[in-house]
Amino acid sequence: MLLTNATLATMHQGTPYGLLKNGAVLVKGHMIEWVGAGDDLPAEASGHEKIDLDGRLVTPGLIDCHTHIVHGGNRANEFEMRLNGASYEEVARAGGGIVSTVTATRQADEAALLEDALKRVDALMGEGVTTIEIKSGYGLDLETELKMLRVARSIEKHREITVKTSFLGAHAVPEEYSGNADAYIDEVCIPALEVAHAEGLVDAVDGFCEGIAFSPDQIRRVFEKANALGIRVKLHAEQLSNLGGTQLAAEFGALSADHLEYANDDDAAAMAKSGSVAVILPGAYYTIRETQAPPIEAFRKHKVPMALATDCNPGSSPITSLLLTMNMACTLFRMTPQETLAGITHNAALALGIDDAGVIKAGTRADLAIWDIEHPAELSYRIGFNPLYKRMFGGKL
Amino acid sequence: MLLTNATLATMHQGTPYGLLKNGAVLVKGHMIEWVGAGDDLPAEASGHEKIDLDGRLVTPGLIDCHTHIVHGGNRANEFEMRLNGASYEEVARAGGGIVSTVTATRQADEAALLEDALKRVDALMGEGVTTIEIKSGYGLDLETELKMLRVARSIEKHREITVKTSFLGAHAVPEEYSGNADAYIDEVCIPALEVAHAEGLVDAVDGFCEGIAFSPDQIRRVFEKANALGIRVKLHAEQLSNLGGTQLAAEFGALSADHLEYANDDDAAAMAKSGSVAVILPGAYYTIRETQAPPIEAFRKHKVPMALATDCNPGSSPITSLLLTMNMACTLFRMTPQETLAGITHNAALALGIDDAGVIKAGTRADLAIWDIEHPAELSYRIGFNPLYKRMFGGKL
Ligand SMILES: [Zn+2]
Ligand SMILES: [Zn+2]
Repeated sequence: MLLTNATLATMHQGTPYGLLKNGAVLVKGHMIEWVGAGDDLPAEASGHEKIDLDGRLVTPGLIDCHTHIVHGGNRANEFEMRLNGASYEEVARAGGGIVSTVTATRQADEAALLEDALKRVDALMGEGVTTIEIKSGYGLDLETELKMLRVARSIEKHREITVKTSFLGAHAVPEEYSGNADAYIDEVCIPALEVAHAEGLVDAVDGFCEGIAFSPDQIRRVFEKANALGIRVKLHAEQLSNLGGTQLAAEFGALSADHLEYANDDDAAAMAKSGSVAVILPGAYYTIRETQAPPIEAFRKHKVPMALATDCNPGSSPITSLLLTMNMACTLFRMTPQETLAGITHNAALALGIDDAGVIKAGTRADLAIWDIEHPAELSYRIGFNPLYKRMFGGKL
Repeated sequence: MLLTNATLATMHQGTPYGLLKNGAVLVKGHMIEWVGAGDDLPAEASGHEKIDLDGRLVTPGLIDCHTHIVHGGNRANEFEMRLNGASYEEVARAGGGIVSTVTATRQADEAALLEDALKRVDALMGEGVTTIEIKSGYGLDLETELKMLRVARSIEKHREITVKTSFLGAHAVPEEYSGNADAYIDEVCIPALEVAHAEGLVDAVDGFCEGIAFSPDQIRRVFEKANALGIRVKLHAEQLSNLGGTQLAAEFGALSADHLEYANDDDAAAMAKSGSVAVILPGAYYTIRETQAPPIEAFRKHKVPMALATDCNPGSSPITSLLLTMNMACTLFRMTPQETLAGITHNAALALGIDDAGVIKAGTRADLAIWDIEHPAELSYRIGFNPLYKRMFGGKL
């Protein structure tokens, strides 16, 4: 298939967006065979089905590199209780907080979890998403962590999308281990990681390093096990305070450190050295009404690649729009439209350790998003508007 | 048509949301004939086509009571320039600001303005909107103000939606009257209002009372003309400073005062007395990174009805989602989910002087939104997710 008369945001050349006007893309099977100016078509291009895009913008298929999209229940009740003036204690007494999501996720069977997650996956796909990362972490017991990862994997069978899984056993201390986080790590989290890995369910290992979750020492034990199993790591770090999680992640050569509102210049320097991506999550920042923005300038200065993701989760970021996430990153963090598009394509691929997506170039997967707009800045500028024209996944429109 | 097995958010009874479980709605022609518990169906209900909603939530069709949805061009370029570090002067030199929208709107013909506006209208309708208010104000000359209002009116012919128009000649001082706002009001704005009214294009008269736009005295002259023509008024007031616009609007018995970030307790008291609605516009607050929130507590205290709208416009609020607007009102202003739903149904109708929409009760238009959720709080809780199941406009699904 030959796409012609396109404005290509290739996202891998020197110019902003790697922009190429009047461009063409030759797709063979599920791969991109050739990309270039419409005037330079190679001889082999003739004879392919030709689709004239009438000047429309083509970007790489979007990548949401940080989600908790598989989970049971929702937290609308707690959202409303708080706005009606309920105290934190009252919400907790009513069963609110992460406990409610853990309970609902443990109770749901795989079919129910899948059906519920697919609604959110469909919302993302409707905006041109072709790759999504999904974490466990609402099970906090062996059985439910495995269940979440199996559901995440099974999404590839039900939708035209690539799924990458992250094992996030170290997300929170479950009630039954309350006050005993060390035992939870040793008795549940690490054994569950081993079983999940043996089942082939784990693409990366994640953790939540924070006062309300796990200490750097506890995360270190999980990362050492990941290392031993040959799995790359990533970390929820410096979201609410600076505990040194970013430095720990860098020490383990993490794919990414995520959130990072309280990271500093030294943290950015360490990430640059380890080649870790900074995953910026404005949906969570917005929802919890955080006021400290992540150190975007430090990431620019140290040339840390910045990715952008929804953090789709029922508590602190119930968002299912990467386009809105782009606008939030511009409006709240003063990221540029070029940075936000790189953040959900090329740099999001880096954050997942993927090297065959997130750019438009020969030899990568033909995952593309085609938009009814003229310029890529429009993707960041509009709010709550979806200009997707067509989506291509593995060469299929 | 009989809708059964619905959770009804009727928005007009004492209970929160006027919620009625296992409710039924009998629709005859384009009107609601009867509303009540499924067990209390009147005899006449039998023999009607019956649709089992399986417990789904039904709300009144949504009403976006403040938009500038008809306009030429977009301002993505200026959005990007600013994020890339351009100064205000550089943006102005490049033709940015409201001038660029005025120029694009003057240049576009009616067909082009309509085609462009319909994309945004479709986005709103996709979320269950059945009534929309549309302002002029990017023409700032007789011909273009009329063109905008004609396009706005014509939307009713192309889509299943009710349109209410507001004449907003007093939106900004055009370049050709720079430094001469009084002459613009007398020579262009008021004569254009008279012509537009004579053509039947004006449902309400609006203005922008602000240091960068028009003074209370200038707005007063426009409102006096509106009074003489028998047209209700509304006003963009206290968005960036407190100039006394709200008091002026109240004096004229305005349908609404809109924005109101800098309004105070006295302003709220005046609005309560005049029966004016406070139209809250979180999209603009968010986009311009305002930090002063409107005085929600004062509106509650004085029982001023609060409506909520997108303010859809290309400069300070390029948003086309009322659902996201609800979430923003909760997150940024701590409005409750009950207040936000009232704000885009019952109170939005009040802000437009409509008394046959915005509630589910016998004798009102059968404009309904049917949602694939269990509780109305979910509409405010989720971000960038559209759970609309079906939309009914004037009795037609
Ligand atoms: Zn997360
Ligand atoms: Zn406005």
